[in-house]
Amino acid sequence: MSHNTFGHLFRVTTWGESHGAALGCVVDGCPPGIPLSEADIQPWLDRRRPGQGKFVTQRQEPDAVRILSGVFGDARTPGQVTTGTPISLMIENLDQRSRDYSEIAQAFRPGHADYAYFAKYGVRDYRGGGRQSARETAARVAAGAIARKVIPHVEIRAAVVQIGPHAVDPARMDWAETLNNPFWCPDAAMVAVWEEHLEKVRKAGSSTGAIVAVEALGVPAGWGAPLYGKLDAELAAGFMSINAAKGVEFGAGFAAAAFSGEENADEMRATRGKDGLDGPEFLANHAGGVMGGISTGQPVTARVAFKPTSSILTPRRTLNEAGEEIELRTKGRHDPCVGIRAVPVVEAMMACGLADAFLRHRAQTGGGAFRPGEPGRR
Amino acid sequence: MSHNTFGHLFRVTTWGESHGAALGCVVDGCPPGIPLSEADIQPWLDRRRPGQGKFVTQRQEPDAVRILSGVFGDARTPGQVTTGTPISLMIENLDQRSRDYSEIAQAFRPGHADYAYFAKYGVRDYRGGGRQSARETAARVAAGAIARKVIPHVEIRAAVVQIGPHAVDPARMDWAETLNNPFWCPDAAMVAVWEEHLEKVRKAGSSTGAIVAVEALGVPAGWGAPLYGKLDAELAAGFMSINAAKGVEFGAGFAAAAFSGEENADEMRATRGKDGLDGPEFLANHAGGVMGGISTGQPVTARVAFKPTSSILTPRRTLNEAGEEIELRTKGRHDPCVGIRAVPVVEAMMACGLADAFLRHRAQTGGGAFRPGEPGRR
Amino acid sequence: MSHNTFGHLFRVTTWGESHGAALGCVVDGCPPGIPLSEADIQPWLDRRRPGQGKFVTQRQEPDAVRILSGVFGDARTPGQVTTGTPISLMIENLDQRSRDYSEIAQAFRPGHADYAYFAKYGVRDYRGGGRQSARETAARVAAGAIARKVIPHVEIRAAVVQIGPHAVDPARMDWAETLNNPFWCPDAAMVAVWEEHLEKVRKAGSSTGAIVAVEALGVPAGWGAPLYGKLDAELAAGFMSINAAKGVEFGAGFAAAAFSGEENADEMRATRGKDGLDGPEFLANHAGGVMGGISTGQPVTARVAFKPTSSILTPRRTLNEAGEEIELRTKGRHDPCVGIRAVPVVEAMMACGLADAFLRHRAQTGGGAFRPGEPGRR
Amino acid sequence: MSHNTFGHLFRVTTWGESHGAALGCVVDGCPPGIPLSEADIQPWLDRRRPGQGKFVTQRQEPDAVRILSGVFGDARTPGQVTTGTPISLMIENLDQRSRDYSEIAQAFRPGHADYAYFAKYGVRDYRGGGRQSARETAARVAAGAIARKVIPHVEIRAAVVQIGPHAVDPARMDWAETLNNPFWCPDAAMVAVWEEHLEKVRKAGSSTGAIVAVEALGVPAGWGAPLYGKLDAELAAGFMSINAAKGVEFGAGFAAAAFSGEENADEMRATRGKDGLDGPEFLANHAGGVMGGISTGQPVTARVAFKPTSSILTPRRTLNEAGEEIELRTKGRHDPCVGIRAVPVVEAMMACGLADAFLRHRAQTGGGAFRPGEPGRR
Repeated sequence: MSHNTFGHLFRVTTWGESHGAALGCVVDGCPPGIPLSEADIQPWLDRRRPGQGKFVTQRQEPDAVRILSGVFGDARTPGQVTTGTPISLMIENLDQRSRDYSEIAQAFRPGHADYAYFAKYGVRDYRGGGRQSARETAARVAAGAIARKVIPHVEIRAAVVQIGPHAVDPARMDWAETLNNPFWCPDAAMVAVWEEHLEKVRKAGSSTGAIVAVEALGVPAGWGAPLYGKLDAELAAGFMSINAAKGVEFGAGFAAAAFSGEENADEMRATRGKDGLDGPEFLANHAGGVMGGISTGQPVTARVAFKPTSSILTPRRTLNEAGEEIELRTKGRHDPCVGIRAVPVVEAMMACGLADAFLRHRAQTGGGAFRPGEPGRR
Repeated sequence: MSHNTFGHLFRVTTWGESHGAALGCVVDGCPPGIPLSEADIQPWLDRRRPGQGKFVTQRQEPDAVRILSGVFGDARTPGQVTTGTPISLMIENLDQRSRDYSEIAQAFRPGHADYAYFAKYGVRDYRGGGRQSARETAARVAAGAIARKVIPHVEIRAAVVQIGPHAVDPARMDWAETLNNPFWCPDAAMVAVWEEHLEKVRKAGSSTGAIVAVEALGVPAGWGAPLYGKLDAELAAGFMSINAAKGVEFGAGFAAAAFSGEENADEMRATRGKDGLDGPEFLANHAGGVMGGISTGQPVTARVAFKPTSSILTPRRTLNEAGEEIELRTKGRHDPCVGIRAVPVVEAMMACGLADAFLRHRAQTGGGAFRPGEPGRR
Repeated sequence: MSHNTFGHLFRVTTWGESHGAALGCVVDGCPPGIPLSEADIQPWLDRRRPGQGKFVTQRQEPDAVRILSGVFGDARTPGQVTTGTPISLMIENLDQRSRDYSEIAQAFRPGHADYAYFAKYGVRDYRGGGRQSARETAARVAAGAIARKVIPHVEIRAAVVQIGPHAVDPARMDWAETLNNPFWCPDAAMVAVWEEHLEKVRKAGSSTGAIVAVEALGVPAGWGAPLYGKLDAELAAGFMSINAAKGVEFGAGFAAAAFSGEENADEMRATRGKDGLDGPEFLANHAGGVMGGISTGQPVTARVAFKPTSSILTPRRTLNEAGEEIELRTKGRHDPCVGIRAVPVVEAMMACGLADAFLRHRAQTGGGAFRPGEPGRR
Repeated sequence: MSHNTFGHLFRVTTWGESHGAALGCVVDGCPPGIPLSEADIQPWLDRRRPGQGKFVTQRQEPDAVRILSGVFGDARTPGQVTTGTPISLMIENLDQRSRDYSEIAQAFRPGHADYAYFAKYGVRDYRGGGRQSARETAARVAAGAIARKVIPHVEIRAAVVQIGPHAVDPARMDWAETLNNPFWCPDAAMVAVWEEHLEKVRKAGSSTGAIVAVEALGVPAGWGAPLYGKLDAELAAGFMSINAAKGVEFGAGFAAAAFSGEENADEMRATRGKDGLDGPEFLANHAGGVMGGISTGQPVTARVAFKPTSSILTPRRTLNEAGEEIELRTKGRHDPCVGIRAVPVVEAMMACGLADAFLRHRAQTGGGAFRPGEPGRR
């Protein structure tokens, strides 16, 4: 219900503005007994940290996370473990460059949420984007690091698969490649193309959109639920809640509209597990690992579209709070392609959504999944 | 939280299976004093009713809705008005054709949720799709009819804009045209193409996907909220909760990934209202009427992708509950293109989501929106 | 959040008015595979059914419950089991005696919610109490019957322990005795006293208050949670949501205010279970089975105070909707002591609250409880 | 849903342990434009601060609150106002006296939540009570200070009305008197009695229970809702969520059980407001300002029972984690009567509950209340 909370049982409430003292989140509902220290969270924050290349904002923030509650350790508890009580995470804002905000203090930047915030609240913190700043995603990434520990057998990975008009060739998709370049690009041949495109965009003071692909491996069958609590519906809300997201699709997604029923059906064959029980082997995954809102045991796959960063140097026509027509250029330290930095955030939202689905599934059914050859509940 | 509830303040809980005695929903949180009788709901149900053409399932259901609670009228209350208490709606299932379900009772139809339900619950009502039946959407449409009355100044309309590979030409888009053909097609020139395509699909016992476009006119600025309760995030969850939905996008959506920042910025000019106050006139609506999760006063526009109906006559490889490999043809009364019947359902989810956003906005701010030229809250 | 829903994972949404076509509820989140038919619910409804004695309202309702969804059975499923989808329950209103409501249609009966409803909604269904009727509790009792099956090892029992000024002697408390008299009185010696008191009250057209005691045996340690989701806080809300409830206490309750710390401490000794593990044996249960919001393995004990029925024959001063001062006698078929009929309702709220707590506990921890002698999570 | 969140629209999520780095809360859903700085919150924290007398714990904490987000001020915004985004509040723990916890690290203190936490989580932070410490209530008081600003026309006041066996004489109740003594005692004649009683208790290393009365003046008619979202049910949950609370009652409460219907009916007469409209004047308030779950415009009155502090010096029998029987004395800095310090906490929970009810009422109805003589919605 809360406007700044996501999740139902694994429940994350985020807070903070770009230029306030700090930002953070409270993770409530985490299972007890999970080893957790700052060292488990920091690496994920480091991955999303800006200031790491010329194509992301130059704001320099250490993004050092502190765990303020919810963990405990003593002589009998080597390291620390979660206690089942709320985990409060805080990241201080240090590099709040003191610049002159007088130009945008009363102007509505086109493509930004400035006007919408004004219309709703009548007041807004315009410094550095305020609540709407991409800095808020640090809290999501921190929460995602905890979520990953709730579902340790699930592997989550994301990549940028399109920047501007330049899409990765699915045939050359190599997840390992994402770590070899600053764009999370899974296609070695595309790196130079993107670099050239982004350099051009950056020099022009412009920006560009992107598409991020994400997948979760190791999700067992049975997570999620009909009908409003569908796994894909919940994940879609999570992805769409990321700044600048404009669309989300699962499996074949929008391409499925052009499919025939024969193409779309993910056929199944038997596969014999180590325990002698039969599980289905799917011959395709157009469903993206979710059918009827419930996971099938296949990889959960999704794609999220991000619009170009709204801050650009070219003057655009707009209004100010007085209702006067003005032209505005948006200066500052900004990403030419916000989609690049979204990669760890998309992963984090996947992790949080799946951890929540796992807990909900365990609540209703006790956990586990029935497999073909088992008697079911009849 | 509940798996079968959507909305937070305008709150709809649906129930029912395809072949049970009835289906329905409870609408809780509706404002009091709204005139409401069955006659306000029935027309919307009639629009989604199957059996109206050869391209939708031939199941014949009157879908007559009964209001069981939450309204009251007496001599001083001409007609009936909502009382603010929960409104229970029920639609009886009448045409539950008694056929032989023995073939699918233990088989997992590919592309259906059969296996996922079995894995999760160990038991499922396989008759006519059970809970997963498209019949469930009747409850959504009924709830949507009430939601429309909560926000009477908002006009909601949807259309099919793509069937299989055949997309409508945006330049020929004419909303009025949707009422002149059985496909909710807004492009007169496309009707014959779709008819031919669907006839071919139907004769082949196949099916096809579709894309539905929806827009809401008259949504004032200020509805929605950062950051998990974003208007587009909530609506996305609503759309994705519809059977067979595989993707959702707002405004420019996935196309925004290829945009430059200049193309994407929705510039603003002043427009003078009747009361002399300035409001922004947007020169484009790539944002789809939502920025930072909050409505801007522009039309809220979205598109939803639907996969092909999973029930097809061509045998597909699959498993049964015993883990045996089988081939399965899915007989029965099915839509070759489930996307067509989704049109009133997409509208209903838009209506429910907006009614909820309206109530939440009114709660936090008292309602209304600040306009340029007004002093705001400072 | 919803005004007419209780529970978080075992989630009950009730609907219906006294004189509408029907009333009922939707139970969402019930685990799958639980045998359930109308025959499992009806006996509990029969227990609360009015018309069974001269000290309860003479309205004659069969209160026959129908399960409209959420269960399934076939040849392989003897009887029916829950499917994990929402269970819709409906009870038709049959004995809506057509009487003249003109006197109260515009008058605010003192002690009733008439004025509060008018002030809030501006409209109300005044027939038979409308939404505020005690008939609504039938839906709770039906839901409670399902909740009991979710936690079959928990035994729940309630009794009336005070009617008017006449309280049961704790030393003579005998739960079995509650079935031997029409007052759920656990003290055989008190039955005649209450009978005489109630007869006097009834003849005077008056009414009287009561206190109901309830306890749940077999609740394992570990259910509930700090700090707002405390088991006793959640149960308190459930009990207070019953019509006419004015107070609730757990364990020693208000008497604990007069205790010293020594009296209040529930000391523990070791008790050796069948499996050789030590569990605590408590030497007292002033805590009422809940400490820090979490169950201790002791019986969960509570008491709920009910005010006298507000409908009485003695004229009372009040206003009508026009703001005029009037005197009003409340005629009709009413209980002189609504607390008597509350017994099965209190039990039902205990059952629903505990089923919800069980599912939430299972979600976060996997279920189970650590016992002294076990290593815990360290 | 979340275990550590209270409220639905005015939503408070608390976090922190007694001996962690800090504690705090996130207040989400607060209306925008409300002037708010630390100076608005600190006085309320100072009221609950321990170390102010010999009858409360001697822990010395400045309890200085910091607002980390959700407010903004600039040249045009004198001071700061809420922005409508989440307000993060933090209070550092400074006086975490490093003492030896080895005695209780593995022992279950009788009357404490030690065993329940162990049983549920298998791990617990035993230092200073951990999450269960009364220090957590500082976060509630801070949130309550904001809630009061959301409903500025409501005046909330609480008092201790019983300590041990010594109850205040209702006839001598004088709210102003509560500020003249360290016990929040509203009866000047009782102060010396309590002082003597507490001195005896303190010297004996014992403790004593208490009852706190609270009332809210200025709550308009119409807040709250049937049936689970009843105002009194929600407030009851809030009060019961406070440490050591064992019971709650509204209006006449448990005493209502002994009432006749005539005594219980709160009769009404007309009262003419300044605007010429008639509002009801109630001749009694046995209902405690709430009927049918909805406020009536009368003062909302409740009483909360607190058990004696569980930490006492007299050895009590108990177990340790190994399952061994031991005797335990609880040393440390503790309140002999935790009920005294509960006064500002009870007020805070009343404030938070009412602010939430106000926002929910405004959502559904637009705010306001119908008065006799007005046409209502018919």
